Amino acid sequence: MYAKTIAKAPLRLGLAGLGTVGMGVIKIVQEKADLLALRAGRPVEIVAVAARSKGKDRGFDLSGYAWEDDPVKLAQREDVDVFVELMGGSDGPAKAATEAALASGKDVVTANKALLAHHGQALALAAETNNAVLRFEAAVAGGIPVMKALTEGLAGNGITRVVGVMNGTCNYILTRMEATGQGYNALFDECARLGYLEADPQLDVGGIDAGHKLSLLASVAFGTQVNFDAVELEGIERITNEDIAHASDMGYKIKLLGVTQMTGRGLEQRMTPCLVPNSSPLAQLDGGTNMVVLEGDEVGQIVLRGAGAGMGPTASAVMSDIMDIARDMRVPTFGQPAATLVEATPAVAAAPAPYYLRLELVDKPGAMAKVTSALGDSGVSIDRMRQYGQDENADVAPVLIVTDPAPRASLDAAIDAMQSSGVLVSDPVAIRIEKV
Amino acid sequence: MYAKTIAKAPLRLGLAGLGTVGMGVIKIVQEKADLLALRAGRPVEIVAVAARSKGKDRGFDLSGYAWEDDPVKLAQREDVDVFVELMGGSDGPAKAATEAALASGKDVVTANKALLAHHGQALALAAETNNAVLRFEAAVAGGIPVMKALTEGLAGNGITRVVGVMNGTCNYILTRMEATGQGYNALFDECARLGYLEADPQLDVGGIDAGHKLSLLASVAFGTQVNFDAVELEGIERITNEDIAHASDMGYKIKLLGVTQMTGRGLEQRMTPCLVPNSSPLAQLDGGTNMVVLEGDEVGQIVLRGAGAGMGPTASAVMSDIMDIARDMRVPTFGQPAATLVEATPAVAAAPAPYYLRLELVDKPGAMAKVTSALGDSGVSIDRMRQYGQDENADVAPVLIVTDPAPRASLDAAIDAMQSSGVLVSDPVAIRIEKV
Repeated sequence: MYAKTIAKAPLRLGLAGLGTVGMGVIKIVQEKADLLALRAGRPVEIVAVAARSKGKDRGFDLSGYAWEDDPVKLAQREDVDVFVELMGGSDGPAKAATEAALASGKDVVTANKALLAHHGQALALAAETNNAVLRFEAAVAGGIPVMKALTEGLAGNGITRVVGVMNGTCNYILTRMEATGQGYNALFDECARLGYLEADPQLDVGGIDAGHKLSLLASVAFGTQVNFDAVELEGIERITNEDIAHASDMGYKIKLLGVTQMTGRGLEQRMTPCLVPNSSPLAQLDGGTNMVVLEGDEVGQIVLRGAGAGMGPTASAVMSDIMDIARDMRVPTFGQPAATLVEATPAVAAAPAPYYLRLELVDKPGAMAKVTSALGDSGVSIDRMRQYGQDENADVAPVLIVTDPAPRASLDAAIDAMQSSGVLVSDPVAIRIEKV
Repeated sequence: MYAKTIAKAPLRLGLAGLGTVGMGVIKIVQEKADLLALRAGRPVEIVAVAARSKGKDRGFDLSGYAWEDDPVKLAQREDVDVFVELMGGSDGPAKAATEAALASGKDVVTANKALLAHHGQALALAAETNNAVLRFEAAVAGGIPVMKALTEGLAGNGITRVVGVMNGTCNYILTRMEATGQGYNALFDECARLGYLEADPQLDVGGIDAGHKLSLLASVAFGTQVNFDAVELEGIERITNEDIAHASDMGYKIKLLGVTQMTGRGLEQRMTPCLVPNSSPLAQLDGGTNMVVLEGDEVGQIVLRGAGAGMGPTASAVMSDIMDIARDMRVPTFGQPAATLVEATPAVAAAPAPYYLRLELVDKPGAMAKVTSALGDSGVSIDRMRQYGQDENADVAPVLIVTDPAPRASLDAAIDAMQSSGVLVSDPVAIRIEKV
C-alpha cells in the first residue's frame, strides 16, 4: 500500500516571493521532505522560484530551482503544478501571476489577504472555470488553521457569528498600553522600531489588514461574495489610556475586534475597537497572538488561538494548503462553488449592543439630566453609570455610562442630542461592548 | 459550474446507533439538506439506519429510511456509501460492523474512541487495503476539529507535543471542587445525578475515556501505531480539596491532563492529574469544556477550545468527516499510510518535570532534614518549600515542596528513601507540573 502510494508523481511547486514566508516554505520543503512525502503519499518539490533580486543570499540553497524573473512566466511553466504566491499586494504582479496560473489550470496557494479581499470572487470563479483550486489559509490568521476549521471542520453547521483578534500589532499596542501606561504614540513608535508595522502602518493600526481577513471569513461563514468595501473599519489610533483604564475598572478589555454575523437586515462586518468582558477568552489574549472564535448552530463556540504572523507559523499555513493539494483534497475557494455565493446586503452595526460611553460634561447643574434624557428620548437605557472624582478647580465632570443593548443608530441620535444641548465639552467616546 | 457540480450522485449514509449523537446527525442531515448539498457539491442522504429498538419515538421522522436490525447487514448494504458507526463499545457489534463495512469497500465515520484506541491499527490497514477511508473526528474532542487541525492543518510541522483536557466530567469535578470547596465524592454523586457519567464511571474519572483520545492524537502526531495500553493512566479520585487549595496558593490549577511527546527514550503518553500554571490557557478552562494544545516545530502553539460532548457538538464533528468524504477529500486514518506507522517504544514520564509534593511529617526534630537529604541524594533539587501552620496539639507537620525539573524515577527514589526513613505519617502526594 505504502509503496504504491509513494510512487505517485511528485507535486511540483513554483514559488513567487522569497521574503520571510517564502523562505519559510522553502525551509520546510527542504528539511521535511521525507515527512511531507509520507503524509502526502507523494513527494512535494519546488521546481522554480521568482523574486525581485536574484543575487541576494537568502541562507538556503536555491541552486536546484529554476529561476524566473517574471512571476507570470513562473505561473505558466509546464513543470509547475501549484503556483505559490507569496509576493503580496492586491494588484500588480501578484494578481497577474495568480490569474495566469489559474488560466493555465494550475492550482494556487496564496498568503495574500489584500488580493483575496479585493478580487476573491473573480479569482474563485476563474479557479473553478479552469478546474483549479485556490486556497489561502495563510492569509487569515497566520498559523491558525482557521479556514480549514470553518470550511471543513464546521461544514455541518450554520455559522452564526465569527469574532476575532486578527492583528497582532494592534493587540500588542493595546495590551502594552494597559500593562505599562505608555500612550498610543509611544507604542506605535516602539512597534516601528521593532519592525512590527507594515510599510503602510494604516494597514495595521487602521484595521485594514485585519479587515481584509474578516471579509474572507465572512464569505465562507455565510456563503456570500467577499465584500471588503462593506467592512466597517475603525483603527485603534483614538484609544486612550484613560479609556483602557476605565474599561478595566468596569471589567472589560479594549480589543481591535473583528465581528461578522448575518442579521435580519443584512451582513454585518466590523473591524473596530470593542470592549470584551474579562471573562472572554479574547480578553486573555496578550501581545501579538491571534484568536478567532467560530460560532456554529450545532457546535456552539470554537476558540482557536495561535501565532498570527512570523516565518514558521505563516509557512505552516501555506504548507497546509499545499499538503491538501498534494493529497488531492480539493475544496472550493470559499467553501462552496463561487457562482453560488450571494451578494449580501451590507448592514452597519445592525445588531443592538451595549455601549461604553465616556463623556466630559460642563460642571453645571442640569447637565447630567440633559444626558440622561437624551439617552431616554432615543430609547437607550442605562445599565451602569459612574462619575469620577474631579479636581476642585476643574470645570469638567467626566462621566462613564454603560448602556443596555441598543441599535447604533439610537445611540448616535442620543449623542447628537447631547451635543446640541451644549453640555459636552469634548467629543464623546462610544465603544461597542461585544459579548463573546 | 454549480449545476454541474450539484448533479453529482448523492452520498448515501447508513447510520448505526440512534442515541444522542445519531439523532444529532439525523437532525443536521434533515434540517440542513440544502446547505450540505451546496457545500459538498452533492446531496448528503441517509438511506438506512440500525438501532436496538425499532419502535421507540425519537422525535424525528425515520420513515424514509430502511431499517436494519443487524448493523453488519446495514454496513454491507449495496445502497450505502458511508457507514456511520455511532453505537459505541470497543468490540461487539461496532467492531463487527466497521470491519464488514471496510471489507465491502465502504467508507466509515465513527465517534468511537474505544474502538479506535483498541483496534485502530488493524482497522486503518483494513481501510487502506479496501481503498476505503476511516475517520473519527468525533472520537477525540467532541466538536473541536482537532484531528483535522493536526492531520491537515499542521501537516507541514514536526509535532513536538500535544497536551489537552479532554474529559469534561473530570474538569467539571475539579473546577467545582475549587469553586465550592465540595469534596470529590459529593461532586461525583452530583455528576451521577446530572447524567454526566458514563455507565462505567471509571471511563470518566479513571481517565480511560480521555486516555483513549490521547492515544489517537499520539498516533497522528508522531506517526506511530495506536498503543492505548502504553498510556500511563491515573484518575482524579485521589485529588483532595487540600491539594487544590495548596496548588492555587502557589499559582497552579489541577487538571486531568493528557500529554504526549516523543522523547529520546520513546513515546510518552500520559493521562494523569497535573498542575498547570494559572497563566496557561488550560488553567482558565472551567466546567465541561475541552481544550487541546498542539505544538509544532514551525507553527508554535495552537490552542483549540470547544464543547467536548453533547448532541450538537459531537454530531458537528461526525458531519465534518462525512462532508470531507462527500467532497472526495480522502486522508489516511492516522494521517499517513497505516503500514508506515511505526511501533513506538513506550517511555513512562521520561521527560524531566517539576513536581508538587505534599508530605505529612512526624513533628520531630530532624524530620525535615531527612526529607531534604532524601531529595538531594536522588538528585532532586527544591525550587520552593512551604510549611503550613499546624494545630498546637497535632503531631503532624504538613509540608509542600515544588521541585526543580527532575525525572520521575529520581523523584520516586527520593520518596522511597523518605518512606524508609520513617518521617512520613501518610503516603506522600506527588503531582507533576506541566508547563504549557
